[in-house]
Amino acid sequence: MNSVPNTLTLLAITFAGPTATQAQDWLPSWNEGPAKMAILSFVDKVTKDGSPDFVPPAQRIATFDNDGTLWAEQPMYTQFLFALHSIGVLAPQHAEWKDKEPFASLLKGDVKAALEGGERAMLEIVMTTHAGMTTEEFEKIVKDWIATAKHPKTGRLYTEMVYQPMLELLAYLRANGFKTFIVSGGGIEFMRPWAERVYGVPPEQVVGSSIKTKFEMRGGKPVLMRLPELNFIDDKTGKPVGINEHIGRRPIAAFGNSDGDHQMLEWTQAGSGPRLMMLVHHDDAQREFAYGAESKIGTFSDALMAEAKKSGWTVISMKGDWGRVFASDSK
Amino acid sequence: MNSVPNTLTLLAITFAGPTATQAQDWLPSWNEGPAKMAILSFVDKVTKDGSPDFVPPAQRIATFDNDGTLWAEQPMYTQFLFALHSIGVLAPQHAEWKDKEPFASLLKGDVKAALEGGERAMLEIVMTTHAGMTTEEFEKIVKDWIATAKHPKTGRLYTEMVYQPMLELLAYLRANGFKTFIVSGGGIEFMRPWAERVYGVPPEQVVGSSIKTKFEMRGGKPVLMRLPELNFIDDKTGKPVGINEHIGRRPIAAFGNSDGDHQMLEWTQAGSGPRLMMLVHHDDAQREFAYGAESKIGTFSDALMAEAKKSGWTVISMKGDWGRVFASDSK
Repeated sequence: MNSVPNTLTLLAITFAGPTATQAQDWLPSWNEGPAKMAILSFVDKVTKDGSPDFVPPAQRIATFDNDGTLWAEQPMYTQFLFALHSIGVLAPQHAEWKDKEPFASLLKGDVKAALEGGERAMLEIVMTTHAGMTTEEFEKIVKDWIATAKHPKTGRLYTEMVYQPMLELLAYLRANGFKTFIVSGGGIEFMRPWAERVYGVPPEQVVGSSIKTKFEMRGGKPVLMRLPELNFIDDKTGKPVGINEHIGRRPIAAFGNSDGDHQMLEWTQAGSGPRLMMLVHHDDAQREFAYGAESKIGTFSDALMAEAKKSGWTVISMKGDWGRVFASDSK
Repeated sequence: MNSVPNTLTLLAITFAGPTATQAQDWLPSWNEGPAKMAILSFVDKVTKDGSPDFVPPAQRIATFDNDGTLWAEQPMYTQFLFALHSIGVLAPQHAEWKDKEPFASLLKGDVKAALEGGERAMLEIVMTTHAGMTTEEFEKIVKDWIATAKHPKTGRLYTEMVYQPMLELLAYLRANGFKTFIVSGGGIEFMRPWAERVYGVPPEQVVGSSIKTKFEMRGGKPVLMRLPELNFIDDKTGKPVGINEHIGRRPIAAFGNSDGDHQMLEWTQAGSGPRLMMLVHHDDAQREFAYGAESKIGTFSDALMAEAKKSGWTVISMKGDWGRVFASDSK
């Protein structure tokens, strides 16, 4: 690089606009290989004016799953760890919990026993900790927790457990006129308080599962109370439904990592014109976790792998395609 | 204005950015008066860097009701006229309708008799015409209808029945870093196919009432089927709920025209910092329609008027505050 930029260089930088993105490497944490190549060639194709594959900026919609795609989901979904923490905080006001499952087991620290109640137990834990307060109160609880809570294996903040290559990908797509959305099975109001700071994705571009809320006046002030009632499950076949409801147009690129993302990728691919579908495969026990078909969390089934091969979806090998996983890793 | 711009002028234009908006009149269809003043002073306050009322661009959320706020809703909601038209289109496939209310009356052209069945009849008409097809099929039906259907009084396209002053307001807010959203009791998928072209509001910034959809495979291709089942009513107390679900932050400006917007304005005002709440009052029988407390469509009750006065919401007199109502009006 020239050590003394001259006026022409400055002018070139000023006026180059989006095409300047091609001169620099926006994806330094991606190893050279088929995954990085798939991204670069797709973006090049849809942004090149006059190309038959050109897509107007307004239609450049990219959707990202969150757990296991943008941040770590092992050994347990972060939101579930948040719920467990909240049970502890709420326990002093609930003497009855010491005799009532799943709470009794949780308070003894026995998560496995608590979850023997299956989905019903899981739902009870989530509703107890996510409902019964206003939307503003819940936002504060999430913000306070996420600011200090540490990942059980690495001891790092959860917001440091995000994948550096995916942060680069989000920024690269936005620099090329894409609108980036999160479409997650996780709670929409659990993600919004920090998604903008961590991912650069504003609240109105976060789609997720939700419980119902109710408008009420409280002391002369309107509030939205969070009710212990499911509103929407944004997972599997729910993802295209959530995309349609919140975004109202079909993505041209979609990124996931598990069976919960299968229909989102199918839905994305079924549109006309160029499409990019990618799946993060967790095959890196050393730098993150290795899991797949057998894992209950973030299941990447053999059927999904077969579908990816058949449909031309790109499987990202965390081990092979990523030069580093977390920002804190040395490259 | 200088007839020969020199380099300094060009530089000034290039670098002035958003503040250049203050030199020109973005609201030429608004008469000078308290309503226009309220808008200008609010925007000035929240966009002035270093001002105690400065609001960062990401938080500049403005929400607009649609029927009666952005376009005409008399003599009948446009979407209902669309439904009536669709009944006619579907009738040949439904021989049984000639003996079944509300369809029998509708097919005889007697809307009043059809609506004697109240909300149930209304709901049946909407579900029959809005469900039972894929989201893509419905989008095409709406697009085709809106491209040619004419307003019963003026004979103009419905998309020409939009209020010119509000189009200017939308553009002015966006030029000042606002994100503009529609938050309407109308159907979200009825508005999306044309809202971007007509209002400059993209699908992902349209919030409205909805029916449920279901992901299905049809001939090997994924589709979303529209089900005859209500999902969400985005009216009255539903508006803050819809805003929270879709936008995830509180607007700093909200615009409505009827009792259906009361809670949206309350919710907007209840945030901290500067706020702008406005209500369009239809008091112009000559250029549009005059209606208010007694109208079943777009009811502007005495209670709403009292609340506006008490809470400092600006009531826009269509007659007094708007120099013209429609783009086609001479000024």
